[in-house]
Amino acid sequence: MKNTFAVIMAGGKGERFWPLSTSKTPKQMLSLAGGKPLIQLAVERLRGLIPPANIFIITSADLAGAIARTVPSVNPSNIIGEPMGRDTAAAVALASALVGQRARNGVFAVLTADHLIGPKAAFQKSLLACFKAAASNDVLITIGIPPTYAATGFGYIEAGQPSGLPGGAHLVKALRFVEKPDGKTAKRYLASGRYYWNSGMFVWSVAAIQKALEKHAPHLYRMARRLEPQIGSAAFRKALAKEYNQLDRISIDYAVMEKSHNILMARSSFNWDDVGTWAAIEKHFPKDPRGNVRTGLCETLDSDGNIVVSDGRLTGLIGVKDLIVVQANGATLICRKDRAEDVKKLVRLLHDTGAYEELL
Amino acid sequence: MKNTFAVIMAGGKGERFWPLSTSKTPKQMLSLAGGKPLIQLAVERLRGLIPPANIFIITSADLAGAIARTVPSVNPSNIIGEPMGRDTAAAVALASALVGQRARNGVFAVLTADHLIGPKAAFQKSLLACFKAAASNDVLITIGIPPTYAATGFGYIEAGQPSGLPGGAHLVKALRFVEKPDGKTAKRYLASGRYYWNSGMFVWSVAAIQKALEKHAPHLYRMARRLEPQIGSAAFRKALAKEYNQLDRISIDYAVMEKSHNILMARSSFNWDDVGTWAAIEKHFPKDPRGNVRTGLCETLDSDGNIVVSDGRLTGLIGVKDLIVVQANGATLICRKDRAEDVKKLVRLLHDTGAYEELL
Repeated sequence: MKNTFAVIMAGGKGERFWPLSTSKTPKQMLSLAGGKPLIQLAVERLRGLIPPANIFIITSADLAGAIARTVPSVNPSNIIGEPMGRDTAAAVALASALVGQRARNGVFAVLTADHLIGPKAAFQKSLLACFKAAASNDVLITIGIPPTYAATGFGYIEAGQPSGLPGGAHLVKALRFVEKPDGKTAKRYLASGRYYWNSGMFVWSVAAIQKALEKHAPHLYRMARRLEPQIGSAAFRKALAKEYNQLDRISIDYAVMEKSHNILMARSSFNWDDVGTWAAIEKHFPKDPRGNVRTGLCETLDSDGNIVVSDGRLTGLIGVKDLIVVQANGATLICRKDRAEDVKKLVRLLHDTGAYEELL
Repeated sequence: MKNTFAVIMAGGKGERFWPLSTSKTPKQMLSLAGGKPLIQLAVERLRGLIPPANIFIITSADLAGAIARTVPSVNPSNIIGEPMGRDTAAAVALASALVGQRARNGVFAVLTADHLIGPKAAFQKSLLACFKAAASNDVLITIGIPPTYAATGFGYIEAGQPSGLPGGAHLVKALRFVEKPDGKTAKRYLASGRYYWNSGMFVWSVAAIQKALEKHAPHLYRMARRLEPQIGSAAFRKALAKEYNQLDRISIDYAVMEKSHNILMARSSFNWDDVGTWAAIEKHFPKDPRGNVRTGLCETLDSDGNIVVSDGRLTGLIGVKDLIVVQANGATLICRKDRAEDVKKLVRLLHDTGAYEELL
């Protein structure tokens, strides 16, 4: 399709995968499931669907250089470094300017950089249907993932009737967005079959998203229109810093999606794994007979169900169970598997004590 | 006292304190309780009691150089490297030759290098009493440690009546040596008040130990007499290798002590800690409010009772309890505290797989 674009969101502070992830190498730069860095996989997933020149990456200014080196197929001028993090609504507004400057009648997907998605064909088929529907309709499409368990770590979307637009049963009306539920509610959602995980991936035309921004977050709309003519000029970076500096943090879900009535949901038919914590990498690796995942040199004695990720160091385990052990960047994490969510808390503690910076 | 000598046994394979201890830096080279290396403490404990020229160290040939650098106060020619480990009976026979060559009427203490002992004054008082008794009597004195708990990791000595020799109530007859007991037996020993831990430290005259060797291990006696005239000569090293090569491994307890009837036991009045495993270092360090011992950079979240020993690396713990974590020499050990005895098993596994050598 002509005038289709993708904007990959690749910010991220690198807290949950410490010590492998750091502020210099956040999650999207890592090869968490073996193989290639997640950001590279995100770009490669688009091959054949979106021309490389039409792929943008929005990341932090600090990371733009490293990302450019990691995904050489993307034109460095298409890699935009945000001067500071201002959450997804600002990034989407910026994305609409980037695409709008190329094609006022463009459609684009907002994609994530830090999820594992496959197979490529199913993903592209999903996106293609969304592009078709978005190209000629004033709709905002969010991609919903059929839940596989009663997750409490994701927002959910309640699905309604088929949209009637091209894309068929794949595209339904989105009745409402709900925040991360408690366990009981999550179970109810899962049982109902009507709720989908909010993947943070969207498809829309420049016109549709800018119209929605104009209505629900007019300052972001105006920012996008002011920035658009400056894209590619020497003044752009400074203009962006000035704009961002004045913004509050607000998510696109909160700023636009929850307030709009022209929301469709695409039911994904691809595999999706947000690889949210160290505990999540387990399923992507083979296990030894006692259920240990080992990457790197590791010897165990009477130890079960551990996840060991190591740079060059040798790890020796004796009599331990269900631990996450990660050795990287001069630090070692030892975390109970069911506490993987708290790695970011530890990272904040390390920031508070100055120990984090000391290592970088 | 004239003609008093000390022979410090400083062999050891460095298995129990892996990865800090290695074959190149076994336990006696480490500063396990903070402060100085154990071998250095062992030498310093003798200051004022034994002239430096009368202190010998028997270690492995591989370690002799490193030991000489660690304890510069000991004359390098007094540091004897065994070509291979042949257990304590061979080392005692060698020791009797070393001392005998200096003074046929010499008395000497056989001391350990890898225990924490103090205070120095109490230790020296104990040794002095032993030297007095041993100088003019055909006795073999073993130093017994009053047990503080029902240890199953040590051999015991059953104490009898006072010896009647100088040294007073300090010196008693040793009724028998018993191997490491089971838990029930150890409790009985502890309750009886008659059993002492076998410290592996001995005092005797050259004459008395050589007489005992001649009777119970005549090949070791003959070895000692053959080696004696060669000590200090260029041929000594080769002669020692030839002798050792023919020996079986046998301990002095088994070869001599258990078979002799002129055994006395000195009841120690000093503090003694064999620092047998990583778990044992705990009491030598301050703890944080949640009972963690931390040496080196360490941050914890909801973690209790852990022992963290680290070279430069940062260690982060989340939700873990009673672990030993040691980072050194390119390796990290994570071991349940109650499995500290099994570190040597892991080291043997690493040897089997070649992973141990890979790191050295």
